[in-house]
Amino acid sequence: MKVGYLGPEATFTHLAVCSCFAEAKQQAYNTIPACMDAAMSGEIDLAVVPLENAIEGSVNMTIDYLIHEQPLYIVGEITAPIRQHLLVHPSRKEEWTNIEKIYSHSHAIAQCHKFLHRQFDSVPFEYATSTGAAAKYVSENPDKNIAVIANEMAAKTYRLDIVKRDIHDYEYNHTRFVMLHPDQHASVQVNPELSSRPKTTLMVTLPSDRSGALHQVLSAFAWRNLNLSKIESRPTKTGLGNYFFIIDIEMALDDVLIPGAAAELEALGCKVKVLGTYNAYVL
Amino acid sequence: MKVGYLGPEATFTHLAVCSCFAEAKQQAYNTIPACMDAAMSGEIDLAVVPLENAIEGSVNMTIDYLIHEQPLYIVGEITAPIRQHLLVHPSRKEEWTNIEKIYSHSHAIAQCHKFLHRQFDSVPFEYATSTGAAAKYVSENPDKNIAVIANEMAAKTYRLDIVKRDIHDYEYNHTRFVMLHPDQHASVQVNPELSSRPKTTLMVTLPSDRSGALHQVLSAFAWRNLNLSKIESRPTKTGLGNYFFIIDIEMALDDVLIPGAAAELEALGCKVKVLGTYNAYVL
Repeated sequence: MKVGYLGPEATFTHLAVCSCFAEAKQQAYNTIPACMDAAMSGEIDLAVVPLENAIEGSVNMTIDYLIHEQPLYIVGEITAPIRQHLLVHPSRKEEWTNIEKIYSHSHAIAQCHKFLHRQFDSVPFEYATSTGAAAKYVSENPDKNIAVIANEMAAKTYRLDIVKRDIHDYEYNHTRFVMLHPDQHASVQVNPELSSRPKTTLMVTLPSDRSGALHQVLSAFAWRNLNLSKIESRPTKTGLGNYFFIIDIEMALDDVLIPGAAAELEALGCKVKVLGTYNAYVL
Repeated sequence: MKVGYLGPEATFTHLAVCSCFAEAKQQAYNTIPACMDAAMSGEIDLAVVPLENAIEGSVNMTIDYLIHEQPLYIVGEITAPIRQHLLVHPSRKEEWTNIEKIYSHSHAIAQCHKFLHRQFDSVPFEYATSTGAAAKYVSENPDKNIAVIANEMAAKTYRLDIVKRDIHDYEYNHTRFVMLHPDQHASVQVNPELSSRPKTTLMVTLPSDRSGALHQVLSAFAWRNLNLSKIESRPTKTGLGNYFFIIDIEMALDDVLIPGAAAELEALGCKVKVLGTYNAYVL
């Protein structure tokens, strides 16, 4: 199996892929659309891209590209903790409290805002295009007294020392990744040690922008006791105020309840599309 | 008045600030949290940061920092079109179809994915930390046959020629920015030529993760005919599956309807917070 992911190497997406698919061949892509195109064309067997809370790509891009461009299905989900560490070149290990500059992706720096404010308030930072690129730079410049904010994998890949662990501001800092495939029923072999729960994701487009329409949609789920773990509105890209909804249901697609709700919504003029029914894995 | 914004210069946030506050002093900040901290401390009179669909910063970061760290109020909103152009150094104007590399922020490149695929399929691209930084690089390297994807302001700031306009894939490509202030009732003077509509944003935290709770929340709005233009769930950062909701209502905060809905929700065990009632401007 060949798994494509949003690269470059040692990103959080790459880390998630390694945890789930230790045996698979891996291929990094520069952008979310490029990775999804490759899954559609069969160049790879599975695309793994961030969907929510991502620090290295636009989340909206994944949903929008899925809806508007590449009709892939969600065949799996990975929720992974995002842990940021402070890394230096091994030769600089003893003097890390006196670093003169910190390199990283802007989102990683922002995620460690409070730590940096407390401990390195006067130390300037410089942005890199990814945490991996910043780690590479630090590894290649042992003569400079600099540090990088990146993950554990970047430390291993670029042989840097972690001098301060878990410097991100929020303990609960997770990213959701989705596995995408052209076939809704594709089976995915992941690391059998991971726990999972079933999930179904629907896209619901309302018939018109009228007051209370969303309330009506949710009624169809509520009276069936279908638990929605997430609901998110996204613009349809046809004009301001026109939204569709992405709804996550905490169960696998069944023959009665979800199809019943969908049929009712369609009778009310909504468009309903199953984006996937899959296992959600937690790392 | 001094307006802080998510920089660097010539970003889309900067462009929005210039359109709304032509007369104001401006100050760029490197991160969304830094900009919001400055508004809280009084270093600036107003912070302008992206909230939705942003290409140059995490949208989630703005909401999360607002909820968890800096209790600023939304005192205004700007919706601005995101138009991406292809820019080259003026001396390269005649040979732009033969460019050898394209520089930009990864999100800008992803937004022009279809155009690049069609017209420059074999041309490699290189990521920069912002569209502005990429434009600066192209302006300083006239000897290289390269182009940059950036906005009109970057073309002016770095004296580049726009050789192909509007190369973004979706015609409807907008970003919402919010104006943040410590005082909920702060009055904001924007360019009087801009049209606006009133809006109120609430944060609603559900009492527990139970089936149908969101449906109950929406009922309180639906039976009052309050039109919700957007609803979005966000994790509370205390654990998986615990979400709060950001709800946009298409009217100014009144004395009867919105407070009535809020009081009912609180009686049901929800936490309700007004994040702001403000004018939403469209550029």
